[in-house]
Amino acid sequence: MAAQTILFDFTLDAGKTATSIQRQEVARIVRNELEHVFTQLELAYSMESMDNGYFSVLHENKETIITCRIFQQGLLTINVEYYLAAGKEPVLSLDTMRTMELILRQKLDSDRSKYLPPIKRGGYIDIYMTSSDERIIEYDIDTLVYEARSPFQKIQILHSKTLGNMLILDELQNIAESDLIYTETLMGRGIENYEGKEICILGGGDGALLYELLKEKPKHVVMLEIDELVMQACNKYLSSICGDVLEKRKTDQYEIIVGDCVDYMKKFIAEGRKFDYVFGDLTDIPISDAPIGECWDFIRTIFEHSFQLLKPDGKYLTHGNGTSCLESLQLFEEQLRLLKPKVKFTTTKAFVPSFMEEWLFYQVTFA
Amino acid sequence: MAAQTILFDFTLDAGKTATSIQRQEVARIVRNELEHVFTQLELAYSMESMDNGYFSVLHENKETIITCRIFQQGLLTINVEYYLAAGKEPVLSLDTMRTMELILRQKLDSDRSKYLPPIKRGGYIDIYMTSSDERIIEYDIDTLVYEARSPFQKIQILHSKTLGNMLILDELQNIAESDLIYTETLMGRGIENYEGKEICILGGGDGALLYELLKEKPKHVVMLEIDELVMQACNKYLSSICGDVLEKRKTDQYEIIVGDCVDYMKKFIAEGRKFDYVFGDLTDIPISDAPIGECWDFIRTIFEHSFQLLKPDGKYLTHGNGTSCLESLQLFEEQLRLLKPKVKFTTTKAFVPSFMEEWLFYQVTFA
Repeated sequence: MAAQTILFDFTLDAGKTATSIQRQEVARIVRNELEHVFTQLELAYSMESMDNGYFSVLHENKETIITCRIFQQGLLTINVEYYLAAGKEPVLSLDTMRTMELILRQKLDSDRSKYLPPIKRGGYIDIYMTSSDERIIEYDIDTLVYEARSPFQKIQILHSKTLGNMLILDELQNIAESDLIYTETLMGRGIENYEGKEICILGGGDGALLYELLKEKPKHVVMLEIDELVMQACNKYLSSICGDVLEKRKTDQYEIIVGDCVDYMKKFIAEGRKFDYVFGDLTDIPISDAPIGECWDFIRTIFEHSFQLLKPDGKYLTHGNGTSCLESLQLFEEQLRLLKPKVKFTTTKAFVPSFMEEWLFYQVTFA
Repeated sequence: MAAQTILFDFTLDAGKTATSIQRQEVARIVRNELEHVFTQLELAYSMESMDNGYFSVLHENKETIITCRIFQQGLLTINVEYYLAAGKEPVLSLDTMRTMELILRQKLDSDRSKYLPPIKRGGYIDIYMTSSDERIIEYDIDTLVYEARSPFQKIQILHSKTLGNMLILDELQNIAESDLIYTETLMGRGIENYEGKEICILGGGDGALLYELLKEKPKHVVMLEIDELVMQACNKYLSSICGDVLEKRKTDQYEIIVGDCVDYMKKFIAEGRKFDYVFGDLTDIPISDAPIGECWDFIRTIFEHSFQLLKPDGKYLTHGNGTSCLESLQLFEEQLRLLKPKVKFTTTKAFVPSFMEEWLFYQVTFA
């Protein structure tokens, strides 16, 4: 189904790989150990570098290709790569990998070593996603439930064995069935009182926020979502988090308007319409024609319009970013500080299961 | 500080790489694009395989080495590896990687591609850990707070920017400051009533379970932990989850006995001592001289002794494994079924932040 890349590394005493003869000896030990696993192993190529480095290519039937590199800084890396056809057994089992690591570590007199489980490459479903601070996370995704391209974005519903169905927009995790905590933290459940209140949601196409808000008996909620197809997908595959709120576009309790939220905010402002709460529940990277560099301008535009829609004691509630993304959070808060009239804010945080990280949420009011 | 390995892959139309000339053309496109980033690029080696495969080694000053492989199944992999010294700028920024991916994808007429953020290898702190089902997870660990080797295991306290201090035993995640949910689910907070009850904890060296149980006013808790050093480390670095309970070994409310829990369970059984609750809070792989194959025998021994210590309406509470580890959970439940007298069980689950996965917990009573 995919190519497998298996990465081993061993810390070496730099003094023990200073000469070409010493490096050849390390390479011999590695080759010797690899030959126990790959009985047809051949050396295809090797190269020495002037600064005490060594690199070689070994292979078995040109199918499993292994590169072995000694860095002058005292590190050996071994990369094993082969194609694993569907239904075939892996060339290296996890047990064999563990044994290889232990034996090589001992034979190389290495005091630290590491191997990673096989990295699967080229599979149709993408199981590797990144956290907001660019860390690699392998998900237990087993099915592509839905995929479509709307005029605005690529929409996928992927199924994770433990997180349930996940909404992925343009390769970014948005929300999953496991993420009630996301919605509850965004809305400050148990802290805010929504009874009888007028609420506007910007975005929110997954329907989870609308669904949870309606349980708290607000007077009325209006939701401005641009992407009809996202709502159709979520209505069908994420009903455990959005209930049946995406079934209808208008009831006595709420109205879902399909369109650009900025246009409708302008319309509401012109009409003098005011809300107790405005929610910023848009995706991270704004859906607009603007280049990414103008992303912060867009976010500020959203803020400015939102505050024009708020009653004097109203609140703007939104998500920030992963709490490890200090730089991005600082830029976000800078935009808040630029607002006129002045605003003040508090934050809350929650570990969001499908993001695999802690996320920061903002509660903004007039200063 | 570490070697960086960057993995790209591109799905190719297999029909477009069927001949040697076509594969050379793909290699030429790749090389051409790489030369924009690595201006000193040289081709060191290339190899064709009989089954429509191609492999080449390129390098810049023998410092950055790039392997490029075309699989007959319609996949191109590009692996870039170099040593990033502390304080130096990466050879490839994330922006450059993204651009390289987009351009190559277009030039190769590929309909799916992927790159992973750099994999850091050889660092003294291990930031990659695996889930119970062997998925790769990169943690935002920034500091090795404590490291020691006790007679029983390697003990580390690592600091994660978002999870706080984490206890790692023999490279396995045990508990972190973020994981109150683990302890609360293990003890069934809000479901079980511990007031006036007699409780025995097997293991529990991190102190979190003892700390939380004492808040519920039990009559007495005895904790049997083998590793003095774990308790010292947790007392010092995990006090936000264990309070000051590890400061003392004995109070009116609890007693911590440092020793092999099996020995003390036998002693308690001989004395006819009985408990309302026994907690199995041992690490996953039992600390004993027994080979790993006998792990399940050890777990059954723990079960058997625990049930001899329980009052007729007593409960044995323990963690299972990640909910995605069906095989391991089945083996666990098989051991429960082998018990005499017969037992029955219920389960609960929770997503444990520092495990980055959902975990299953068992509540076992006499049938």
